[in-house]
Amino acid sequence: MSAANGLALRESVCAEDEARVRRLVAGTGFFHAEEVEVAAELVRERVSRGPASGYHFVLALHDGELAGYACYGPIACTRSSYDLYWIAVDPGWQSRGVGRWLMDQAERRIAQAGGTRVYVETSSRAQYEPTRRFYERCGYAVDARLVDFYAPGDDKVVFVKVVAAAG
Amino acid sequence: MSAANGLALRESVCAEDEARVRRLVAGTGFFHAEEVEVAAELVRERVSRGPASGYHFVLALHDGELAGYACYGPIACTRSSYDLYWIAVDPGWQSRGVGRWLMDQAERRIAQAGGTRVYVETSSRAQYEPTRRFYERCGYAVDARLVDFYAPGDDKVVFVKVVAAAG
Repeated sequence: MSAANGLALRESVCAEDEARVRRLVAGTGFFHAEEVEVAAELVRERVSRGPASGYHFVLALHDGELAGYACYGPIACTRSSYDLYWIAVDPGWQSRGVGRWLMDQAERRIAQAGGTRVYVETSSRAQYEPTRRFYERCGYAVDARLVDFYAPGDDKVVFVKVVAAAG
Repeated sequence: MSAANGLALRESVCAEDEARVRRLVAGTGFFHAEEVEVAAELVRERVSRGPASGYHFVLALHDGELAGYACYGPIACTRSSYDLYWIAVDPGWQSRGVGRWLMDQAERRIAQAGGTRVYVETSSRAQYEPTRRFYERCGYAVDARLVDFYAPGDDKVVFVKVVAAAG
């Protein structure tokens, strides 16, 4: 899966990626303005503070255009738990296994860094049913559900996957 | 409870508070070095970015010395959920209702700001039994438990309390 769909993988993050991420995340139609801002802020943090930011990226590119990306990092004060903060694929690139490929690349790096548990959170709303299905297909299981967390009737669903620590 | 035990309450945060918080948190003997760093970082973020940091403080002071403090803030991308990031009382001031007072002050401000749900997380380890009891006495209930989150055998316990939004 080293170059699925002719996509190139990049881990370094540059200032221009903020606009790319913003465009991609907004373009999915899945996230409201505040969420787009959070996605952009993680890129800025990474650019300004480097790996010490705790935010790591895998970016899938095609001719310099961002087809999708994932952002993950170690959870402070845990021994080996990681958060998958973000994973998004451009609508034009969806349903081609790009999300699965990015997830696999992120998990591989997490395991190589000694991570053993990957957490990802999403909403219980109907709109996120495909998202939840995607996580389940990737081997994630529901670990907790926080009722009304996002808003009344909008729970937070926490998924977890145990990954084998490498080495 | 406006000045319990002759303590003064301060909400503004200055650069010198970082050392005070660091000393207090380390002095409880409850937190390891990485956790102390996180506590200090929240103070730095508040000092450098102000309220926009999303970190709000209530500091209980006695003759300029920090007796205890709580740190809370709105959870991004939620309508009205708040995190109680930190609450700690100097060992010399414990068992006098200072923690309860700080909790009450934080919750009051959260409700005034429109918050409806307050989340606080802690470890399942035996050492934190008094902490969990304290949250329960303050009206918090276990909302979720993430097995092995902090480390094997060390779960994350998420408590929640519904507070009445003011106004």
